[in-house]
Amino acid sequence: MKQYDIIVVGSSAAGVPAATTARKYYPEKSILLVRDVEFVPIPCGIPYIYGTVNDPMKNLIPVTKIAGGNKLDLEVAKVTSINREAKTIGTDKGETFGYDRLVLATGSKPIVPPIKGVDKGHVYAIKKNAIYLKEIQEQLDQSKSVVVIGGGFIGAEMAEECKKHNPELEVTVVEMQDHLLKLVYDEEFCLLAEEALISQGIKLALNEQVIEIAGKDNVDSVKLASGKSLPADMVILGIGAVPNTELAVSAGLELGETKGIKVDKYQRTCDPNILACGDCADKFSFFNHKPSYSKLASIATMEARIAGINLFHTRRMNQGVVGCFSTSLGGHAFAAAGITEAGAKDHCCDVVVGTAAGINRHPGLMPGGDDLKVKLIFEKASQRIIGGELYGAYSAGELINAISAFISKGMTAEEIATFQAGTHPALTASPIAYQLVNAAEMAEMQLYNLHS
Amino acid sequence: MKQYDIIVVGSSAAGVPAATTARKYYPEKSILLVRDVEFVPIPCGIPYIYGTVNDPMKNLIPVTKIAGGNKLDLEVAKVTSINREAKTIGTDKGETFGYDRLVLATGSKPIVPPIKGVDKGHVYAIKKNAIYLKEIQEQLDQSKSVVVIGGGFIGAEMAEECKKHNPELEVTVVEMQDHLLKLVYDEEFCLLAEEALISQGIKLALNEQVIEIAGKDNVDSVKLASGKSLPADMVILGIGAVPNTELAVSAGLELGETKGIKVDKYQRTCDPNILACGDCADKFSFFNHKPSYSKLASIATMEARIAGINLFHTRRMNQGVVGCFSTSLGGHAFAAAGITEAGAKDHCCDVVVGTAAGINRHPGLMPGGDDLKVKLIFEKASQRIIGGELYGAYSAGELINAISAFISKGMTAEEIATFQAGTHPALTASPIAYQLVNAAEMAEMQLYNLHS
Repeated sequence: MKQYDIIVVGSSAAGVPAATTARKYYPEKSILLVRDVEFVPIPCGIPYIYGTVNDPMKNLIPVTKIAGGNKLDLEVAKVTSINREAKTIGTDKGETFGYDRLVLATGSKPIVPPIKGVDKGHVYAIKKNAIYLKEIQEQLDQSKSVVVIGGGFIGAEMAEECKKHNPELEVTVVEMQDHLLKLVYDEEFCLLAEEALISQGIKLALNEQVIEIAGKDNVDSVKLASGKSLPADMVILGIGAVPNTELAVSAGLELGETKGIKVDKYQRTCDPNILACGDCADKFSFFNHKPSYSKLASIATMEARIAGINLFHTRRMNQGVVGCFSTSLGGHAFAAAGITEAGAKDHCCDVVVGTAAGINRHPGLMPGGDDLKVKLIFEKASQRIIGGELYGAYSAGELINAISAFISKGMTAEEIATFQAGTHPALTASPIAYQLVNAAEMAEMQLYNLHS
Repeated sequence: MKQYDIIVVGSSAAGVPAATTARKYYPEKSILLVRDVEFVPIPCGIPYIYGTVNDPMKNLIPVTKIAGGNKLDLEVAKVTSINREAKTIGTDKGETFGYDRLVLATGSKPIVPPIKGVDKGHVYAIKKNAIYLKEIQEQLDQSKSVVVIGGGFIGAEMAEECKKHNPELEVTVVEMQDHLLKLVYDEEFCLLAEEALISQGIKLALNEQVIEIAGKDNVDSVKLASGKSLPADMVILGIGAVPNTELAVSAGLELGETKGIKVDKYQRTCDPNILACGDCADKFSFFNHKPSYSKLASIATMEARIAGINLFHTRRMNQGVVGCFSTSLGGHAFAAAGITEAGAKDHCCDVVVGTAAGINRHPGLMPGGDDLKVKLIFEKASQRIIGGELYGAYSAGELINAISAFISKGMTAEEIATFQAGTHPALTASPIAYQLVNAAEMAEMQLYNLHS
């Protein structure tokens, strides 16, 4: 039996940074990284396999290279058991490894809803497995119609990339809610996302529920609650994911309210020698400390950087999920951080909203310009920013991170309105028209009138 | 004599937002905006007149439109006097206007160095005057060689745009220091900027000083201290600017250490009814409260938003100059905020530096990717970020604003290393490779080893 100081189970967006962070702060410790697949897909890159990079093998986390650069031992095997008393793990290859500290980064599993016929052929969940993802690609080549169930961002991205893969393909997104992306955007941004998909010839079935996946062995159509039937040579399930906790449960570790592995703010499980991070771990909201169901690679990585340093002492704390995310639809960026205006009402907090829009160049005829629309949401009582939504220019992909910083530091509308933002003709709007600051000023004006 | 509640003198990056901010917070007040030119150039857009937008009239602040939308009265006249007792201003057209509060936003004047021959024809400073800027364009059309004196960002941008205007043109930048852009970048970034210019066929004369601008009536060559002579059909002075304070001085207002109009942290001059903001106003550093000579449109706008609300009470405070700026050279973004590593040594503070680089896509073969290089500078004692430098992808134009936010909120390396940054295959590096967070982690590791 080989003995390690640290064993990390899982090597995606949580496992890899947990191991490399451990390496940075514990240069003398021996570290083993165990994964259950040889090839680990970049999770957020999965949709782009189909219309952009065109091969699952071109969308891999370079685990071997990272391991080499960080003196990590590697093992490809499924961990099937943990003996917490002996401090060992066992694998499906019959091997046993001893640990001093164990990190569980076992990720999530796609939700397979209990719809009649969901077990038919050519119905695919988005599994993080390159070989499985290749099957989806092959089936796409043979299909004339695809139905994507679920209009969250994975569903929207998959729909767009399937259409890019084959412009002749009939692509329909079925969503139970009245809008796509409703969890992360307010209605006006959802409408822009829907427009981006519709303009590419993608069909949307909103306010619709799938009641049956029909066909003989393989799917041939999808039946909706409204009575409609959609032809479908394949179905993609983009409904979300649940924590992958089988191993943790079998080892007697507690789960939390979101069914993730229960952890404290240091990412420690109920066993002081075992930490957990990423999609498999329970989460709480930055805003109200209630359970959070968010699963993003950026959250996983943040938690991994906490777990990796906290292995032998408590040095970093999880502040809770802010939620910061971005995507591209129809050639425009969509990004959001924190809480939406609609979501704020569910949190029972009164808000003030500021918006601003304009081209991200000055003068506007500078090349490469695109519209950039900013919405900021402030808590009325504290005057602090709690959310932001962006649409348009690709620079939104970094601007959302400024907003995430504002949120994490509790900046007020006043502070953002007088924030020193660099601007340049070829890169941004002018300082006078700078959307972020103007949106904050609009909110501040309302707060000023309320409080003065 | 017409009476106004508020008069703003100047309508560039300070005057316009001062007036519009005043309008937002004082909806009932009458406001007059006075400018001395009919057409007000976008200041940071001036270089781009020559190689990109190709007409000074396409690089204007839409003052009339903004005035219309904000109920501002407009006057085109040079303000020649202020009677502080009577609370009136007089113009070169012989008119007098009364004010209750006055905002001076008179900007800066380009430095014309006392070089022999600087008064010859075809030697141009960068004046914020569309008609004058048109003359430069006309002379460019007739020139085969141009010498740009000064290798700050205006000099570098002017050189690039002159070359774009006419690729046959011989363009040389003369800089006294050993590198371009040395005020805002550390050497490794200066070298990248120099490479960007050289690769476009622009010549650099570093460590060189101009001792004479030679020629008969018009310049025909530039003599350097090293003995070299550069042919020059025209010379562009890109040396910097000094506060335009003639009007303030004639009214007996005090100047500060930087020769700008002395103001308190509320942007009030020594006369309680007169405020000043932008390039004409004295400034201090965010970091040590010492005088700051920075002149950026982003600082001007920030000060204007403070002055505009503080006219009738003190509501906002100036925190001092962080300094956040960006540019584009050779198709790559260059951006910086705060203090450089070299500059930190001048501030007598020990620093720790973190760097990270990589393509701003994941996987790297996603379209539109560019390298993004990040350097972060942390004060060793406080562990707080005091500076950042970026090179590469255009998204740096917004990423630098996240760094500006980090600086203004005093974020530690630890906080940035666990900051929740949104990432997406089409927009940024992966969460594992995200440069900003990795640079912070590299610095944090050093701080950790120092402090633990």
